[in-house]
Amino acid sequence: MSRQFLAEGLKLSGGDYGVVAVVAVVALAALAIGFVLLKEVLAAGQGTPKMQEIAKAVQEGAAAYLKRQRNTLSVFGVVVFLLLFALPADDWNERIGRSIFFLVGAVFSFTIGYLGMWLATRANLRVAAASREPGSGREKAMRVAFRTGGVVGMITVGLGLFGASIVVLAYAGQAPKVLEGFGFGAALIAMFMRVGGGIFTKAADVGADLVGKVEQNIPEDDPRNAATIADNVGDNVGDCAGMAADLFESYAVTLVAALILGSTAFGAAGLLFPLIVPAIGVITAVIGVYITKARPNESGLVTINRSFYISAVISAVLCTIAAFVFLPPSFSEFGQGFTGQGNPAVIATVAVIIGIVLAGIILRLTGYFTGTEHGPVKNVGKTSETGAATVILSGIAVGFESAVYTALVIGAAVFGAYLLGGSVALFAVALAGTGLLTTVGVIVAMDTFGPVSDNAQGIAEMSGDVDEAAAQTLTELDAVGNTTKAITKGIAIATAVLAATALFGSYQDSITKALGTIGSTAAGVKSFIDTIVSPNTLVGVMIGAAVVFMFSGLAVNAVSRAAGAVVYEVRRQFRDIPGIMEGTTRPEYGRVVDIVTRDSLRELATPGLLAVFAPIAVGFGLGTGALAGYLAGAIATGTLMAIFLANSGGAWDNAKKLVEDGHHGGKGSEAHAATVIGDTVGDPFKDTAGPAINPLIKVMNLVSVLIAPAVVQFSIGPDASFGVRLAISLVSLAVIVVAVVVSKRRGTAIADTPAGAQAPAKTA
Amino acid sequence: MSRQFLAEGLKLSGGDYGVVAVVAVVALAALAIGFVLLKEVLAAGQGTPKMQEIAKAVQEGAAAYLKRQRNTLSVFGVVVFLLLFALPADDWNERIGRSIFFLVGAVFSFTIGYLGMWLATRANLRVAAASREPGSGREKAMRVAFRTGGVVGMITVGLGLFGASIVVLAYAGQAPKVLEGFGFGAALIAMFMRVGGGIFTKAADVGADLVGKVEQNIPEDDPRNAATIADNVGDNVGDCAGMAADLFESYAVTLVAALILGSTAFGAAGLLFPLIVPAIGVITAVIGVYITKARPNESGLVTINRSFYISAVISAVLCTIAAFVFLPPSFSEFGQGFTGQGNPAVIATVAVIIGIVLAGIILRLTGYFTGTEHGPVKNVGKTSETGAATVILSGIAVGFESAVYTALVIGAAVFGAYLLGGSVALFAVALAGTGLLTTVGVIVAMDTFGPVSDNAQGIAEMSGDVDEAAAQTLTELDAVGNTTKAITKGIAIATAVLAATALFGSYQDSITKALGTIGSTAAGVKSFIDTIVSPNTLVGVMIGAAVVFMFSGLAVNAVSRAAGAVVYEVRRQFRDIPGIMEGTTRPEYGRVVDIVTRDSLRELATPGLLAVFAPIAVGFGLGTGALAGYLAGAIATGTLMAIFLANSGGAWDNAKKLVEDGHHGGKGSEAHAATVIGDTVGDPFKDTAGPAINPLIKVMNLVSVLIAPAVVQFSIGPDASFGVRLAISLVSLAVIVVAVVVSKRRGTAIADTPAGAQAPAKTA
Repeated sequence: MSRQFLAEGLKLSGGDYGVVAVVAVVALAALAIGFVLLKEVLAAGQGTPKMQEIAKAVQEGAAAYLKRQRNTLSVFGVVVFLLLFALPADDWNERIGRSIFFLVGAVFSFTIGYLGMWLATRANLRVAAASREPGSGREKAMRVAFRTGGVVGMITVGLGLFGASIVVLAYAGQAPKVLEGFGFGAALIAMFMRVGGGIFTKAADVGADLVGKVEQNIPEDDPRNAATIADNVGDNVGDCAGMAADLFESYAVTLVAALILGSTAFGAAGLLFPLIVPAIGVITAVIGVYITKARPNESGLVTINRSFYISAVISAVLCTIAAFVFLPPSFSEFGQGFTGQGNPAVIATVAVIIGIVLAGIILRLTGYFTGTEHGPVKNVGKTSETGAATVILSGIAVGFESAVYTALVIGAAVFGAYLLGGSVALFAVALAGTGLLTTVGVIVAMDTFGPVSDNAQGIAEMSGDVDEAAAQTLTELDAVGNTTKAITKGIAIATAVLAATALFGSYQDSITKALGTIGSTAAGVKSFIDTIVSPNTLVGVMIGAAVVFMFSGLAVNAVSRAAGAVVYEVRRQFRDIPGIMEGTTRPEYGRVVDIVTRDSLRELATPGLLAVFAPIAVGFGLGTGALAGYLAGAIATGTLMAIFLANSGGAWDNAKKLVEDGHHGGKGSEAHAATVIGDTVGDPFKDTAGPAINPLIKVMNLVSVLIAPAVVQFSIGPDASFGVRLAISLVSLAVIVVAVVVSKRRGTAIADTPAGAQAPAKTA
Repeated sequence: MSRQFLAEGLKLSGGDYGVVAVVAVVALAALAIGFVLLKEVLAAGQGTPKMQEIAKAVQEGAAAYLKRQRNTLSVFGVVVFLLLFALPADDWNERIGRSIFFLVGAVFSFTIGYLGMWLATRANLRVAAASREPGSGREKAMRVAFRTGGVVGMITVGLGLFGASIVVLAYAGQAPKVLEGFGFGAALIAMFMRVGGGIFTKAADVGADLVGKVEQNIPEDDPRNAATIADNVGDNVGDCAGMAADLFESYAVTLVAALILGSTAFGAAGLLFPLIVPAIGVITAVIGVYITKARPNESGLVTINRSFYISAVISAVLCTIAAFVFLPPSFSEFGQGFTGQGNPAVIATVAVIIGIVLAGIILRLTGYFTGTEHGPVKNVGKTSETGAATVILSGIAVGFESAVYTALVIGAAVFGAYLLGGSVALFAVALAGTGLLTTVGVIVAMDTFGPVSDNAQGIAEMSGDVDEAAAQTLTELDAVGNTTKAITKGIAIATAVLAATALFGSYQDSITKALGTIGSTAAGVKSFIDTIVSPNTLVGVMIGAAVVFMFSGLAVNAVSRAAGAVVYEVRRQFRDIPGIMEGTTRPEYGRVVDIVTRDSLRELATPGLLAVFAPIAVGFGLGTGALAGYLAGAIATGTLMAIFLANSGGAWDNAKKLVEDGHHGGKGSEAHAATVIGDTVGDPFKDTAGPAINPLIKVMNLVSVLIAPAVVQFSIGPDASFGVRLAISLVSLAVIVVAVVVSKRRGTAIADTPAGAQAPAKTA
């Protein structure tokens, strides 16, 4: 087990170390700026005692959930840590580094999620308070909301960049293998936070709506509804914590993929440039956050988009300069007999710009398909006149269509970067990914804006301490947040595809290297490669696509089940606690928070185990060709499914807003009821299943990259053993089957939850 | 252009010709038995004059639609005929044969569809009449319905087997290339009939329900609703004509795939055995049809399932005998230095049995997920208590889950056959396909049973000439038909996967051969193969998956648009024609039939063009590796999507039936309204988009196989030209874009159809 995968040329020079150290300093600077912004946000006014009381309940609920989630995930993290340790490695240094940095990635991912939640539950109060200031309310509220996003954005890029540059400084040539661990830790925890938070937020939301809006006919966020606090907690643990962890993971994994491929293609320089590009992104993100200022008579979305475009252009310019400064004009200057066609600086520049442009196009496409002012949402709104069925059908059609266009655009970017790259094609794809990364700081800021405004509105409504003008401001910010949330999901899935494509290449690379070091005969290798192009591969593609469907179905079912528990509990409180409806007694908010906390943590295990063990079962059971097919199937279907779910959900949500704005009969009409049904269907689509597919793809990719050498080891050469492969595959399969059966036994539908089962929940 | 793809060993001996001739005679015998059954069905009583009058209106409407569809498709057929003629071929014999048999396949496909419709529109009347006979009504009605299915089943297998055996007799060694044309013609026309018929039936159904049930609160099939005749016409052109053509296509293409791979793997014997297996299927189908007799106190589904299982077991036994009689015990006896491991007879037997068992498992799986007596549908029914949104969500989750299990079972069958086959692995997969084919006769009979019973119930209700007991009988038959329809879709998609996997192999084969004959250097071939394993392939997988989403979205939108036109027309008639509601004036049924006819024919162009031109654009534009990825993506995602759409639709339909049977509040309750919304969403899922994906997959596969030599020719060797490839690709892309834009300009939602646009429709 002492293979030498790494080329000699990977050693870093003293000057190289200097550049990486500068990048690390930039990363620390981002964290410092985040701290400055944080101070500003926390210094803002906190409104009335009633508002503070509500905010406190939300803060406590969210913190309690994340602490319990941390305990659950710790167990899982330790198990994976040990498994990782057992996988083949070049030497002890790599083996230990990979496992340690797995934990670092996981801890960073969780920390950012926790911080995003912590800050959001404090910022929402301050946004609500700011909106009350006469005259300057809109401007101040927007400033606080966007600066809150800025904090999360800065910490996301800061920690991501800092982690990666430390790995490069410490491990140099072995950095790629250690980075696999770092990315895997980040992706795994992010997936769990997305799934758990997504189940929490939508179970509370759907449960609250079904009893409150539908049965008792009281408004959203009405304090008489026992599930309202849980609903607000959900916005923070799902949309804030889950999203922040997810975007950190997107950032880290894309960066990791670029570094892995960079080192394969370019040697040392390949480790430098992928760090320089996101470091530039830090600078432009700071500019983007500071230039965002609300203007009177301008939609908040226009303001935010302008900041995005300005910072994107600055990124493009600075990256171009960096490419020509740091990269030589010819491949031959890389030494070590490196021969490639074209000008490396030009290739790198164009690849990065492809990534930046891709972000811009996704921004526009998503805005078109989910914005209230464009055709698709207007059409969905119109169909509300013929009832809920046509709303559902038209929303599904919008989702399908937007998924196709977005996937084609992402495919075109991959293909463009690939064509451009010649002999370093995969690295060019990864560089396009780092181009996308330069926009992540602003994107995170845009996304955090959404749930913070949403919650500010909730606090305002529940407290009753906000006047008409301030309520108007908060409603406007909430609508803007809806679109920015959809945009973020599009960008996140784009990073998933670019990173996954690059990792897909690195998976093949890993197999080729493992084959080479085993020293098998040429004929053996030939027949081994033959098995890659076989019906097995097709079966692999099918299983990969199936896992995406399974994961989506599990997530939707989990929301249904958990929402069912909420429905029963809220009904029980209305029935058993006198005075709730009259407003004389407060409902027991804590019980609902407890129920949702327990249920979402229980529900996240099955999809999580599926993501980790399915590639192991396929890889060891059907071989490397089938595993490659599996990844391709999962990436392709996952991309389409993720965008379909996000955009149909977004379109339904905004179609409801259209009707509520007075179109097609307005609030209370049958058309409104139809769009409420559409919105409820869209809730788990867009906030649970859809966004979790992004980290799912990366987790499965990284698991495949990590196990590839072991699969090859047991498939060919002296250690080849069909028995060992079969045993590993069957054990993995058994884990999945048991997990699915356990979750099945909880029933599959809302109405399945027995009322009695909810009784023993503890009160917070 | 004078390549010699074919091995010398493909020549047929005199004895071989004899065997094929016997198969052709068996095929003719199937047609004769179909004729005998037809006589019996037509001889049955035709009920009251009022019933006959209604049936006549349906007959005329259906015939008018299919005639207009024939004219539309003729134009398309001629264009494709010319394109096929222009593609590279070995010699003139092959070139002419391929194009001629393309037309034969197309004409057969259309003929079976037309015949299915013609017979169904006559049989429904006779089933309704038979149900009125006191005492023996149930038995007689079921007999007529199932014998009607028997006619269609016999003609499907008869024409399929006859066509294939004639090609083998006439072309011997060149049969595979000519069979590609035959299968392509069958698949292309079937796809159009599925799409057009599917749009027709659901546009009329949804439109009729939205105005009748929802707005005017009158029952389904009420003669006051102007869309009722169109609804009944739709059942016949969609569920009968479209389905019959689709199953013929499944039969033909699977057989074609087996023959192509058989000739590659085994030489002459490879052309014989794949013909013998379905010939055995003809015999067992006859047995299956004749033993199906209703028993008192036994569900109709149990009766039909028993026939299926008995005939499946007989098929397995006869196929085993045939394998040991016709195949030698060792591969070496095939001569020509053929070396393979294992016993060919055993391999063939097990492969065929895998196919038969697969059919049985799909039957059970589909029954479980869509039957009213099992957990999934009961759960969907329960969620109706918490409203339409939860019905939609639980139905979607059932669809996702059932798709995963079905896809995994199909994948396991492919993998099992593949493992078994060793050096003839792909042929074993194709043989598993022929095993499935032995069940097609009974499956078609089962499926036709559904719409015939459905229509019989419609005629009974509209005429009012049927008493309580007879109505009860017809309702029971209709419910059985719902499940048999879902089962057929599962089997059809399984044939699609097996055929597609085999064709996928034949696509790779075709490329390798084309490469070989061009005589390029080893290094050139190596670098060519390298491009197959690249990010391009991944982009191809993504585009393949995207086309499935696009196709599904287009189909759903087409139904919405056409249904919108129906809604406006029916509303207009209620408003403008006095006396309709009172029952004193008959609505103008013909106008609605005309509108739906015109709209469905207009709507089928875009998805059709997408299916044909997308693989051309990808193949010439991105190369053979990307095209292989494209096919894999389309097969995998298509399989999951097709089953998802079929089974979620089936589950919603039967959940509605559960509520109508008195559960969860029964008819008229809010729970019922919720399930009606679910059923309406499911309508275009299960009857338009879902079933059309099956022929879609095959059309795209066959297009790829047909263009593969041309793609290679322009990619490598003396004719290589990037310009030509780009031009072909861009033209194909332009066709798709224009088609999509044209269909977009018709609007995207029901409410988009302006009322005035419907005015100039002619009266029938």
